[in-house]
Amino acid sequence: MNTNKKVLIVGLGLIGGSYATRLTELGYEVGAIDLNPQSIEYALNKGIIAHGNSQVEKDYIAQFDLIVFALYPKTFIKWIEQYSRYFKKGAILTDVTGVKSTVVYKVQELLPKGVEFIGAHPMAGTENSGVSNSTSKIFNGANFIITPTERNQKETVEFCSQLAKEMGFGKISVISPKVHDEIIGFLSQLAHCIAISLMCCKQSEELSYYSGDSFRDLTRIAKINDKMWSELFLLNKTALVEQIDKFTKTLNQLREYIELGDEEGMREMMRTSTQNRIKFDKKD
Amino acid sequence: MNTNKKVLIVGLGLIGGSYATRLTELGYEVGAIDLNPQSIEYALNKGIIAHGNSQVEKDYIAQFDLIVFALYPKTFIKWIEQYSRYFKKGAILTDVTGVKSTVVYKVQELLPKGVEFIGAHPMAGTENSGVSNSTSKIFNGANFIITPTERNQKETVEFCSQLAKEMGFGKISVISPKVHDEIIGFLSQLAHCIAISLMCCKQSEELSYYSGDSFRDLTRIAKINDKMWSELFLLNKTALVEQIDKFTKTLNQLREYIELGDEEGMREMMRTSTQNRIKFDKKD
Repeated sequence: MNTNKKVLIVGLGLIGGSYATRLTELGYEVGAIDLNPQSIEYALNKGIIAHGNSQVEKDYIAQFDLIVFALYPKTFIKWIEQYSRYFKKGAILTDVTGVKSTVVYKVQELLPKGVEFIGAHPMAGTENSGVSNSTSKIFNGANFIITPTERNQKETVEFCSQLAKEMGFGKISVISPKVHDEIIGFLSQLAHCIAISLMCCKQSEELSYYSGDSFRDLTRIAKINDKMWSELFLLNKTALVEQIDKFTKTLNQLREYIELGDEEGMREMMRTSTQNRIKFDKKD
Repeated sequence: MNTNKKVLIVGLGLIGGSYATRLTELGYEVGAIDLNPQSIEYALNKGIIAHGNSQVEKDYIAQFDLIVFALYPKTFIKWIEQYSRYFKKGAILTDVTGVKSTVVYKVQELLPKGVEFIGAHPMAGTENSGVSNSTSKIFNGANFIITPTERNQKETVEFCSQLAKEMGFGKISVISPKVHDEIIGFLSQLAHCIAISLMCCKQSEELSYYSGDSFRDLTRIAKINDKMWSELFLLNKTALVEQIDKFTKTLNQLREYIELGDEEGMREMMRTSTQNRIKFDKKD
């Protein structure tokens, strides 16, 4: 791994804070930039960063060879637009952003020669936000996706993959930004749309008196950061709408079997879902 | 509570076995009937029943004042049709069936005078089935629903509620079979339909390499007992189809906001879902 073991985290939210925690545990010297001085102070007090800055200063940034961006997608792009000349030559930049096609190419275009950005997406999180909810546990055995373009060097992809492995991630995959967005439109964004819709389509004070764990599990992520997720949805609009339509079609097929009393049709779908679900159990 | 502390469980599956476990822990003398001798043997070996029978015998049944039916709905009705004359006069019968309108009235009609059936639905379970997966933990803090009709005595409703409390359930509610079926069509059956559809609408060997916990949580129940759930769906067809339609309409509203780029519309739904979801956190 990187020999100087110095990493800068830009954006100390839930994921940025969890990265800081894990990298500090691993012996890295972790610095952070967050415009909120309280987030920096919290992280310093908890010992999950060695030093931090609530302003964006060239001298501070220029000392890092590895920088992880954990910002909202639009903020991330604006940040690069504004400060791309601050990076050390040879620095490697990566991120944790949940959409890729609308981010990766733009960021790579904005960077000066000799500074390389490699897109990444750790498939880990919780329904809570903010640095005070950070925990490095969420990475253990979680999936990790790297989305290189033709501008990335093989060694950088390999470096990013090694870092993810060191951080405790389980399966590490390398796919294109486009494939990422289609898959994540289905696996993550559609899942959030379903949870939101479940919590909006029927309400009464007493509904919670009757629910079981299945409903609780399905709607855990309905507790959602509306600013971040609306941004993510809009930046992946085409893929997401397509996945919603695909899901609705399948749900309507099941609905038809129920209405027609087609027991065998229903059971066939249930056997398929049972079979397919087995692959998703987490191994950590 | 019932002074003789003797309970018969009919049907030693996941829920029947978990009832047996908890009631034995509480000091009841628990007997069981299951046509599969291996289930009886397993439960005897584990010490979760005091005695059992793999045949339906009048002499065995007639000694119990309290009987809990944990059978599939149709099997339950057939059982009552066949053996309703075996019950002791004064016996109280209850169940754990996930649908009520199509079961409760029929069973009450079939019973001789002096034998009272009170419908109940413990909102607890796991995605696994069978007595070997039983665990009494699932009841701790879980919701419990009692669905009396005009044929039930107040004291019996009270008795059923006391038993649930003793067993460790949290919120205990009393509602009509019709209201139960509408609510459970939404909270439980729709949730299962969504999970099944998610696992049927897109598949590739690699999809599991990219998923996060949200997708895992949403689809946990896609691992489903197709025989039991197809029966439950069909016995609650009208309410379930109505709930699916209500959900689809809300999801389509969200889809429209996404397609139109209506950020405020999306965020408003997300704020509502966040607010509503808070009530569902389990207190145990």
